Amino acid sequence: MAPAPGRQERIPVAVLGATGSVGQRFVSLLDKHPWFELTTVAASAKNAGRPYGEAARWDLDHPLPESTAALVLTDATSPVVERLVFSALDAEVAGEIEAACAAAGALVVSNASSHRMDRDVPLLVPEVNPEHLDLLELQTWKGGLITNPNCSTIGLVLALAPLHRAFGVRRVHVVTMQALSGAGSTGVPAMAALDNLIPYIQGEEEKLATETARILGRLSDGAVHPAPITVSAQCNRVAVLDGHTECVSIELDTPATRDEILAAWEGFRGAPQELDLPSAPAHPTLYLDAPDAPQPRLHRDLEAGMACILGRLQPCPVLGWRFVCLSHNTLRGAAGGALLAAELAVASGSSPLALPMPQL
Amino acid sequence: MAPAPGRQERIPVAVLGATGSVGQRFVSLLDKHPWFELTTVAASAKNAGRPYGEAARWDLDHPLPESTAALVLTDATSPVVERLVFSALDAEVAGEIEAACAAAGALVVSNASSHRMDRDVPLLVPEVNPEHLDLLELQTWKGGLITNPNCSTIGLVLALAPLHRAFGVRRVHVVTMQALSGAGSTGVPAMAALDNLIPYIQGEEEKLATETARILGRLSDGAVHPAPITVSAQCNRVAVLDGHTECVSIELDTPATRDEILAAWEGFRGAPQELDLPSAPAHPTLYLDAPDAPQPRLHRDLEAGMACILGRLQPCPVLGWRFVCLSHNTLRGAAGGALLAAELAVASGSSPLALPMPQL
Amino acid sequence: MAPAPGRQERIPVAVLGATGSVGQRFVSLLDKHPWFELTTVAASAKNAGRPYGEAARWDLDHPLPESTAALVLTDATSPVVERLVFSALDAEVAGEIEAACAAAGALVVSNASSHRMDRDVPLLVPEVNPEHLDLLELQTWKGGLITNPNCSTIGLVLALAPLHRAFGVRRVHVVTMQALSGAGSTGVPAMAALDNLIPYIQGEEEKLATETARILGRLSDGAVHPAPITVSAQCNRVAVLDGHTECVSIELDTPATRDEILAAWEGFRGAPQELDLPSAPAHPTLYLDAPDAPQPRLHRDLEAGMACILGRLQPCPVLGWRFVCLSHNTLRGAAGGALLAAELAVASGSSPLALPMPQL
Amino acid sequence: MAPAPGRQERIPVAVLGATGSVGQRFVSLLDKHPWFELTTVAASAKNAGRPYGEAARWDLDHPLPESTAALVLTDATSPVVERLVFSALDAEVAGEIEAACAAAGALVVSNASSHRMDRDVPLLVPEVNPEHLDLLELQTWKGGLITNPNCSTIGLVLALAPLHRAFGVRRVHVVTMQALSGAGSTGVPAMAALDNLIPYIQGEEEKLATETARILGRLSDGAVHPAPITVSAQCNRVAVLDGHTECVSIELDTPATRDEILAAWEGFRGAPQELDLPSAPAHPTLYLDAPDAPQPRLHRDLEAGMACILGRLQPCPVLGWRFVCLSHNTLRGAAGGALLAAELAVASGSSPLALPMPQL
Repeated sequence: MAPAPGRQERIPVAVLGATGSVGQRFVSLLDKHPWFELTTVAASAKNAGRPYGEAARWDLDHPLPESTAALVLTDATSPVVERLVFSALDAEVAGEIEAACAAAGALVVSNASSHRMDRDVPLLVPEVNPEHLDLLELQTWKGGLITNPNCSTIGLVLALAPLHRAFGVRRVHVVTMQALSGAGSTGVPAMAALDNLIPYIQGEEEKLATETARILGRLSDGAVHPAPITVSAQCNRVAVLDGHTECVSIELDTPATRDEILAAWEGFRGAPQELDLPSAPAHPTLYLDAPDAPQPRLHRDLEAGMACILGRLQPCPVLGWRFVCLSHNTLRGAAGGALLAAELAVASGSSPLALPMPQL
Repeated sequence: MAPAPGRQERIPVAVLGATGSVGQRFVSLLDKHPWFELTTVAASAKNAGRPYGEAARWDLDHPLPESTAALVLTDATSPVVERLVFSALDAEVAGEIEAACAAAGALVVSNASSHRMDRDVPLLVPEVNPEHLDLLELQTWKGGLITNPNCSTIGLVLALAPLHRAFGVRRVHVVTMQALSGAGSTGVPAMAALDNLIPYIQGEEEKLATETARILGRLSDGAVHPAPITVSAQCNRVAVLDGHTECVSIELDTPATRDEILAAWEGFRGAPQELDLPSAPAHPTLYLDAPDAPQPRLHRDLEAGMACILGRLQPCPVLGWRFVCLSHNTLRGAAGGALLAAELAVASGSSPLALPMPQL
Repeated sequence: MAPAPGRQERIPVAVLGATGSVGQRFVSLLDKHPWFELTTVAASAKNAGRPYGEAARWDLDHPLPESTAALVLTDATSPVVERLVFSALDAEVAGEIEAACAAAGALVVSNASSHRMDRDVPLLVPEVNPEHLDLLELQTWKGGLITNPNCSTIGLVLALAPLHRAFGVRRVHVVTMQALSGAGSTGVPAMAALDNLIPYIQGEEEKLATETARILGRLSDGAVHPAPITVSAQCNRVAVLDGHTECVSIELDTPATRDEILAAWEGFRGAPQELDLPSAPAHPTLYLDAPDAPQPRLHRDLEAGMACILGRLQPCPVLGWRFVCLSHNTLRGAAGGALLAAELAVASGSSPLALPMPQL
Repeated sequence: MAPAPGRQERIPVAVLGATGSVGQRFVSLLDKHPWFELTTVAASAKNAGRPYGEAARWDLDHPLPESTAALVLTDATSPVVERLVFSALDAEVAGEIEAACAAAGALVVSNASSHRMDRDVPLLVPEVNPEHLDLLELQTWKGGLITNPNCSTIGLVLALAPLHRAFGVRRVHVVTMQALSGAGSTGVPAMAALDNLIPYIQGEEEKLATETARILGRLSDGAVHPAPITVSAQCNRVAVLDGHTECVSIELDTPATRDEILAAWEGFRGAPQELDLPSAPAHPTLYLDAPDAPQPRLHRDLEAGMACILGRLQPCPVLGWRFVCLSHNTLRGAAGGALLAAELAVASGSSPLALPMPQL
């Protein structure tokens, strides 16, 4: 694994919204991270001043690192001193706070939807559109802002990108079966989830369509031109803790055989793999042959939860091909994806983080 | 509700495969049925001779009727004396036993897949293709055989039929999220269902495609000509006890507005409603306006579990329109559907049951 | 079933806290009730003025009665005109509002814990301590107040009462496995319930001990003298929608055989059965012989959810006997229990409802 | 961690019953084990000859090690060449096969119940009764046999042992809420687990009582004299994947304060900790202060799933003290516990393994 280029010490980072479901994943992933050191955890004003270990209802199945437990929470609306900031804030408050951090000089990598569609903000999937990082140069903040797509978009885009490169993807029909953690740790009541599913997630179907087109879009003349891909999405919440499963049908521009499609996924590598980034999965798209794979409980943690797990590739009599993909929504789909984006920004030198922090 | 035409006493009926998940639903529905009286329960040889109440692991949340509990199980491979036989046998054994019953003069209404695609066997959804009952006349058995479609097909076909009549349905993309009971009461291990879903149900995707085309097909010259509808299905098992939910996208022959589609469902009635059959739902297709409906736990029992519950009608940028439908897989999708088929056969007089039982 | 004594028309009733989980059960049970007619539904101020069907997130698997859906919600803090009031308010606000209703002349039957331990308030399980209704005479309100015990207490007390009468119960050890609905429809997040259980329910262990002793206590000299029964309770929340299961071990004053204990449960009848109250279960304590009964999903709805379902009676080498009991926590343990209490108060004539409402 | 005493190379080991739920845990734990190397995987005759990776339905959320996937399954009834054999066979076949292996000279460490109560077979919990290994000398086989207790017993005994040492435990009341994996990967149908619990596990209540007394018993004159501890157990199956939770009440011989009990757990160490065995948890009994701990999903993997996690210590008005304990049933309660037993046998030199394998 590449060391952080030209650097002896780890870069101090802050996590905003650190007590929530995604915030906890950030905290967990930053423990022993080779490049980054968690120095600030911030949350809502009412928890400011409390030790993290006391205020956060730790929800993961491995223990909270003791050093992090002792960190005292700050108010997320206060300025942070770190030059790298991860935001797991709710969309309602994220927009303003993130802009303030970026204005103050930090590179903000956000998991919130607030700025995803801003003209000059990269909506980044590091293996797919690393060149969108060039948008950072257009930003007028002293620092910068990168956004992480919606959790269900990331899995889909990873699955589509190699096919889009090789054959062109024209139309996509996707039905998602999304995990509970995607709604936050208290977002779905147990009474609504047990012996049930909910065929609706507010705003999700729109996000899948618009974000996919933007991520697969081309950057030219300082703007992202969305890919001419039509996406129809139906989104469901099911009784799964982690891992979004998606049933996808696609129409390609150029006909492709089953072997060609499998080869496209098999060979897919991107900037994170080339740069050997700490959080990069060896195989960003991993196809499983078993007839009943992928399954969320069995496969979401493959490749440390950072890959898109694929299966069930079959001809689709309506659109051409269909398959199933699975991605871990709070790892690849949230904290892990944002971490990888930050690693790419740092390693590629294309980020404003490189300017104010020459020691990198 | 119409009385059984011209008849004072209830028709004695047998249920084959009475101890299983669908068999129990038959037993439950036949309790206090106005036309039919359960007189024989049959199961595998190893349970023959035992009281039903002892041999069946009753799995429903309402009590087993005491009179049925006392019925002594017979061997399903033995001849039955009843002229009306419901079969909930496993497909492996159903084919032969059902044929023997039909040969012996009974009208068999089967939930098994064995004979569904037989050229001269009606694959019946009473609201949709009652005229397929005419196939009975082509059968060479002394009695007759009617089949009930696959549980996921029934919900889909009910949703499609009114639209197909009004606008023509050309292409269908469907992703199912199917209940555990569809695999029988012990079909899915808890370890495979909890915090998980399985994106595969053996043979299901093919059945959805072929059965849908046959049911919506036209009977002429003594044969069913499948409707020219292309169906692409992806089938998933989810942690829901009862109720199959399906995300459907459709392409129509004739453009239709949202209001026209809603009106087609709203106004949909068929032979069961016209004949006021005992098990007929008032609204075979029932649309719910709530943005997050239908949900299996909340809505599967509407219309006594005999309707297709619809919701989330929206434009689909890929195919035209998309919606969600839900149907109770062991009621409408199995025992209830078969019961309704039997009622239709009896009431319409088109069945061989009318011949050997002139008192009807 | 006895008609409401000497009355032609149904008694108008109000339900406070009508939109919540228990409130919905009240609404459901009052539909078509032979004695009572739901005329007012009240909830928090923010919902006042909205139709019930719009404001309530109906959570039951049978449809909301249309007449109730049309009722306009009032503010629960406003005076109600009905002389019979059911309260499903949260404990935080219930105390004051219920007292105000009682002061204004209504008979309040409350499911909240606020007044359960008040010296002059009956904590009523109609089969067990109907004589505690005499406490109403000591109340200084113009109307009166009856409380329903905690949901886990009711099942336990029904199981214990016949044994206490026959043999004396001295010590009780109980471990509960309680349903999600006991915490309200949004009380437990799905992330906390799936693949998990929570060995803690705030305040529940204390309630089980103190309420049990009070309900089984003797009324004399105008006060309830708690029964000298020691109860040790450990309470757990498990992933079950409805139905509290309790593992109980007991020490008796007088030795009893297995047959004697079974006979005590078998023969148990109380005032509701003698008076043939509309909501009275035929068998308030129902023992099932199957080695793996009772189970919440299969048995909670026996006797319309109004009984304590028993099973697994075995010698306990530590205390004497042990068994398992199950009761439906939102029916018998909440709305159904309160309804039965109201029926008893009306039918027995011991209630103040009889005084200001002579037409009863 | 101590190296395997005096040994350069890893000891080859066989796993019988390798494809099942516990067998998979053995396979997983033996991957990269510092002392043991998995060389033979055996299963039922019908799978013999197939590669493990093909025959086993791998059910764990981390990948099957590739080297193990390639191992060809042998028939478990055939002789094995390894001197150390782990058995995860079903009790129906385990007894005979294990005896044959022991007779052939192997040290068998078994997870099956067949030989647990044999007079000369250690029923071992390494921290609790390491001296029971001396029973091996009484065995007449050329090799030897050690058994691992029932999964629910292990958690209980770990919790009791430090208290028994310090204060004497006289009477125990325990109610278990056991995980699905305890019944094997297909043991409980999903229809029986969802929205349900089962208050019965065949034979489990007896095992908890007799095994606990034996493990805490004293070895003298070549026999184990069971501890005079009365245990009353009620066992339930709940919808949890892994982790048995137990609500325990105890009566002590000598009164103890809360602090004394906590100190006994805090200070508890045994032979595995003293010998620094590879699979030994640092804290075999770990108390959590949170009011709602322990919870299976959150805490079963603490100490790598090898500890008894405790919480909720409170006075019990019936027996004295009560608490909740949790242990991972397929790790500490099965494969992990057996592995630790084998490590102890090897490291302590008290095992026959030391004799025929002098290179140790």
